[in-house]
Amino acid sequence: MDHTSKPPEMACPLPISDYPHVLMAHGGGGRLMHQLLSKVFYSAFANPLLDNHHDGAALQIGDGKIAFTTDGYVVQPMFFPGGDLGTLAVYGTVNDLAMCGARPAWLSAGFILEEGLPVETLTRVVESMRQAAQIAKVVIVTGDTKVVERGKCDGVFVTTAGVGVIEHGRTIGPTMIQPGDAVILSGDLGRHGMAIMAQREGLEFDTTIESDCAPLGEPVQALLEAGVDVHCLRDLTRGGLCSALVELSGQAQLGVRIEERKIPVDENVASACELLGLDPLYVANEGRMVAIVAAEHADRAVQTLQRFEVCAGSRIIGEIVKDHQDVILNGVLGVDRVLDMLSGEQLPRIC
Amino acid sequence: MDHTSKPPEMACPLPISDYPHVLMAHGGGGRLMHQLLSKVFYSAFANPLLDNHHDGAALQIGDGKIAFTTDGYVVQPMFFPGGDLGTLAVYGTVNDLAMCGARPAWLSAGFILEEGLPVETLTRVVESMRQAAQIAKVVIVTGDTKVVERGKCDGVFVTTAGVGVIEHGRTIGPTMIQPGDAVILSGDLGRHGMAIMAQREGLEFDTTIESDCAPLGEPVQALLEAGVDVHCLRDLTRGGLCSALVELSGQAQLGVRIEERKIPVDENVASACELLGLDPLYVANEGRMVAIVAAEHADRAVQTLQRFEVCAGSRIIGEIVKDHQDVILNGVLGVDRVLDMLSGEQLPRIC
Repeated sequence: MDHTSKPPEMACPLPISDYPHVLMAHGGGGRLMHQLLSKVFYSAFANPLLDNHHDGAALQIGDGKIAFTTDGYVVQPMFFPGGDLGTLAVYGTVNDLAMCGARPAWLSAGFILEEGLPVETLTRVVESMRQAAQIAKVVIVTGDTKVVERGKCDGVFVTTAGVGVIEHGRTIGPTMIQPGDAVILSGDLGRHGMAIMAQREGLEFDTTIESDCAPLGEPVQALLEAGVDVHCLRDLTRGGLCSALVELSGQAQLGVRIEERKIPVDENVASACELLGLDPLYVANEGRMVAIVAAEHADRAVQTLQRFEVCAGSRIIGEIVKDHQDVILNGVLGVDRVLDMLSGEQLPRIC
Repeated sequence: MDHTSKPPEMACPLPISDYPHVLMAHGGGGRLMHQLLSKVFYSAFANPLLDNHHDGAALQIGDGKIAFTTDGYVVQPMFFPGGDLGTLAVYGTVNDLAMCGARPAWLSAGFILEEGLPVETLTRVVESMRQAAQIAKVVIVTGDTKVVERGKCDGVFVTTAGVGVIEHGRTIGPTMIQPGDAVILSGDLGRHGMAIMAQREGLEFDTTIESDCAPLGEPVQALLEAGVDVHCLRDLTRGGLCSALVELSGQAQLGVRIEERKIPVDENVASACELLGLDPLYVANEGRMVAIVAAEHADRAVQTLQRFEVCAGSRIIGEIVKDHQDVILNGVLGVDRVLDMLSGEQLPRIC
């Protein structure tokens, strides 16, 4: 019995942050996850680098600077149109480094394997990692393997960590966001989440929905090399565009105003979302980001990003405002809607 | 069907490296694990840094140098005398950095949580990580949390990665080992493995066996600062002293000769090993290392290490020889015995 429990009359209904057990929703990228992070992790490990709540930490090494980040990958099914666990494990961490404005360079890979896993399955995942690393121009330099009994894990879990080199003097992060900044979205939304969900639910469309899973290191480097005044970058993974913007808005203590008609969603993705009752604004992506840049550099930023296939759909979707601290979506019919983070998870084990 | 499979008449009995499924033994630190690493990981990810097969990779950053490493932690039971999953997850990675001759500085932490896990259990693990990080003088700067369904993981798995700063110009690793070098062991063997096993098996002794789980960063830094000509360092985790020496011997293409009477084993640990039919030379430790140093610096190295409580039992246990490439144990009765790596695992999920 937890002696810090509240007396029974106060304990029910539980405040959202006081669930005594971990729920699937605690991993969903929404408000519950942030509450778990705050309550358990941030409070214990508090330090200025972690307190940035950014995709990674920037560390000074002699006269150089690196970004350091980690992510675990538990996606189910392990193989899906457009990628697999291995692809995700490389690109996901590469993208977190890119979001720190770093040139992704080195990865570590920790494998937890379930007894009885076909070695062929592991080999497929590893081969995908090899290919993805080659494409993203990173080297997997160190690793670890653990095996647990049958039924104590789910095939393969991979946790990658990444080190990237920061080759510029600027700070990139939520605290740099300014009123008036342009919000650029790098492409259409919801492919990754819907590729996974369509496979899980056995949905069929005219064409297969493929995950957008792709590395964002080169477009980000190009932005920086083009001299674009980049204030903040964020990839749109669990919780999608909406959760990312709500998070950034909170951290920057500024508002965001975006226009629905400027946000591209593929037709099949939109149909799948409708069938499953999901909002593409909240669906996970694995090759999309928002770049928040000085307004006067926005056009140059879009042109620079569009040179890369993965960012060909880049466009300005809105701006940062100072008169409120909400994320406001101006709908296709012209009506404003305040967007909030989801409480829990929309799509479990999406990455 | 794997089209690369051998024809049936050759497939049975399977060569040890050709098991079609992952076995518990593939995670045991023995020959099977090394075969899985070679067959699946090293062949796919081949690069000079990974090919070192060291505890971590040394990376050049501007005019500075860092070590980068990772380990997953799946120990069961999660809490044991002398430590817990959280303590291990910090010290294990700290020690891998130390073995690269780096000053451990920053850690990442990736958590995979099982739905239904008591938040209190997670909080205990995280609190242990906080304390361990403070003791080891490292900062946890970035992290990630995933949640999987009940029955798809085993409470908590933690994968930490670490970055350490290499503040000297020397290369430390198996390729630096020279004939005549002294082999120094930093303390008694087998505590960690036996602390876990005694708890699993419900064994009782006069005093509880406590894990030796501890950080080795400071003693290693002291060795380097004392100007000891350190050739190679290796912590004695899965597979114990014996597997570490067999591995190093193979990598250095040199022999090792150690004397059994110089290798300390606590009385309770020895009893537990006898009861369970285990050899302490193969049992996992989490706060022990071998330091292989130039013979003329060996006494200074031992004196330096003994200043630290965790290395108080340091002593020279043998030497590197060039007339063979085996690890030879000179037994208490004076008889020589060739030591080999175990094929599989002795103690599953020990870390």
